[in-house]
Amino acid sequence: MALLTYLTTTHFDFGAVQMLPKVLSRAGVQRPLITTDKGVVAAGILDTVKDVLGDAVSAAVYDETPGNPTEEATVAALEVYKAADCDGVLGLGGGSAMDLGKGVALLAGSGGELATYDPLAGGNRHVKDIAPVVAVPTTSGTGSEVSVGFVIVLNDGRKIAFGGPRFVPIAAVCDPELTLGLPSAITAGTGMDAITHCIEGYLSPSVNPPADGVALDGLWRGWRHLERAVHEGSDRTARWEMMMASTEGALAFPKGLGAVHAMSHALGRLSEPRLHHGTLNAVLLPSVLRFNEGSAPAEKYERLRTAMGLAPGADLAAEIERMNQSIGMPKSLSEMGVEEAMIAPCIDHALADLAHRTNPREATAEDYERLYHEAL
Amino acid sequence: MALLTYLTTTHFDFGAVQMLPKVLSRAGVQRPLITTDKGVVAAGILDTVKDVLGDAVSAAVYDETPGNPTEEATVAALEVYKAADCDGVLGLGGGSAMDLGKGVALLAGSGGELATYDPLAGGNRHVKDIAPVVAVPTTSGTGSEVSVGFVIVLNDGRKIAFGGPRFVPIAAVCDPELTLGLPSAITAGTGMDAITHCIEGYLSPSVNPPADGVALDGLWRGWRHLERAVHEGSDRTARWEMMMASTEGALAFPKGLGAVHAMSHALGRLSEPRLHHGTLNAVLLPSVLRFNEGSAPAEKYERLRTAMGLAPGADLAAEIERMNQSIGMPKSLSEMGVEEAMIAPCIDHALADLAHRTNPREATAEDYERLYHEAL
Repeated sequence: MALLTYLTTTHFDFGAVQMLPKVLSRAGVQRPLITTDKGVVAAGILDTVKDVLGDAVSAAVYDETPGNPTEEATVAALEVYKAADCDGVLGLGGGSAMDLGKGVALLAGSGGELATYDPLAGGNRHVKDIAPVVAVPTTSGTGSEVSVGFVIVLNDGRKIAFGGPRFVPIAAVCDPELTLGLPSAITAGTGMDAITHCIEGYLSPSVNPPADGVALDGLWRGWRHLERAVHEGSDRTARWEMMMASTEGALAFPKGLGAVHAMSHALGRLSEPRLHHGTLNAVLLPSVLRFNEGSAPAEKYERLRTAMGLAPGADLAAEIERMNQSIGMPKSLSEMGVEEAMIAPCIDHALADLAHRTNPREATAEDYERLYHEAL
Repeated sequence: MALLTYLTTTHFDFGAVQMLPKVLSRAGVQRPLITTDKGVVAAGILDTVKDVLGDAVSAAVYDETPGNPTEEATVAALEVYKAADCDGVLGLGGGSAMDLGKGVALLAGSGGELATYDPLAGGNRHVKDIAPVVAVPTTSGTGSEVSVGFVIVLNDGRKIAFGGPRFVPIAAVCDPELTLGLPSAITAGTGMDAITHCIEGYLSPSVNPPADGVALDGLWRGWRHLERAVHEGSDRTARWEMMMASTEGALAFPKGLGAVHAMSHALGRLSEPRLHHGTLNAVLLPSVLRFNEGSAPAEKYERLRTAMGLAPGADLAAEIERMNQSIGMPKSLSEMGVEEAMIAPCIDHALADLAHRTNPREATAEDYERLYHEAL
């Protein structure tokens, strides 16, 4: 039985950030905790947002979000939330800052520890309440602003993907203006994250045609504009389209993702080296596309090719490799600092990941080992 | 500023109707008024639904919905609703029965007269409350089960398209099983309604890429399966895909529709002849596609062609005409019983219709006159 739901209210355009006071007020938030990171602060974006909020909104700030959000940081942010008597979260940043914000909202509303809410251990039934979250992305990749999920590395080393319809922010405010100054390497890595969401969401065997349509539209936009966004960062059209591709990629999340995400979540839990999620996806995507071909219906691969403007039967994996090269992505995991010895412990994490379950071809431990080595 | 919202929870598959007791209970409805029509009753579908509801749910029935729902019928159904102390609506049927149900829910919750809520006269601000609606389509065309709109012919002769996010049913239960026995002429007319929703929703200049993606996916499914659904009514795949195309078409509604709907609403308000909405759309669509070409971005027409599996540059209007012929649609308005004298009064109605505002090319009174005559 297909269950189709679409949830987030999204304000989307250049200048959308000006709507924040109204959006927070509608969400019933007077004293938000802004979860963000040092990069967003350095880029002046936190100041922009504070200016927009003005005196009407009394905001506290947690700006220590690490590259991959951790339980430790989430708990630290929760302390700030409590100390300032906050009544909601304004997640401002890339996926990490927004995801950390979702974690704070969960703990603020339901108490306890994050591990209690692991969806693979039936944790969603423990969710009592969630503080209201308004999300403002400053990159175009994660789509966390409209997604049902968030990912946090627990103190015990596991990287858990929390997921459920209640984790969708009350509202998303997507302002491509905030991404005009994004460095090209981040534009590239986050852009490939968005593209991977569209592709893996679409290939997931879950039945949800509206989400399929959204994923293909996101891929159509993302694939046409990523190189321009990377090489001409001030191109407003490219920035608008990449932010839309990111939002659309995440609207496909309810279908589930696939082996690329299972593998990149496993590597992303490492504290050394700290690996960028979207860049990992970019590097892993070609091998997984080759692995899945023939298991997903051929028609689905054809629709991916059509969305990407490729000829019928074109080699999808090779096209991703060409794109990766054009936008300066690393060629391999080794180039990112991953070493042979790090692979083996990742395999069990990949098998236990939520995204593993919706890959169109069931991957075994041996498959993951081979796929990791192919990408190494 | 683009505002993107997706709202309905949709249970979709063969057998979905079995979920009705649970869905009504979740919606807080114990005593629904079932709004339906004589055709649904004759097909045995009302009995099926009553069997599923069993003794747990005490349902009242209004089965006098006319072919195009009228204010008079809506008020009559409201009387049944009140007399049976109903606490919600179960709209069971094609667009007419579901739309009438939405009208009842509005009047039950907010009182007054339908004309008060005309959205073009700022009526939405008068909406206080709306009784919960669960919608069960028995045709694949209208998509009213997930749509923000409903259309009712007022006592003064105007055919009003009410619209707003609060008119979306709380839940939709889409069971293609209910359409297996649909006569081929209704399958054809309703199917072309769904296809017109996808095309006009997509061509609307409103900015909503997720809705664009959903519309194109709906068109992709609908165009590939309509002939099979018409000619082999028991084909389960074709019935499933047509019902999904219908749902997806209506998920594109928030973008607005276009001149086809403005013109068919105007004709659909006539009490004699009573004209089938989807069939009108089928007959009007080719002329409007020719009228709009060049005003909508060329890229959009290309994406329509791609979704329909046509060659680049193919003549869209001619393809619609070919489809109309294949599925037995009338060739002209005259063939449907429309006469020359009926046209002139329709023009003002078309200009005043909500759908008129989102046609990609602004249509003047002269344009509508010419378009009507082309289709006559």
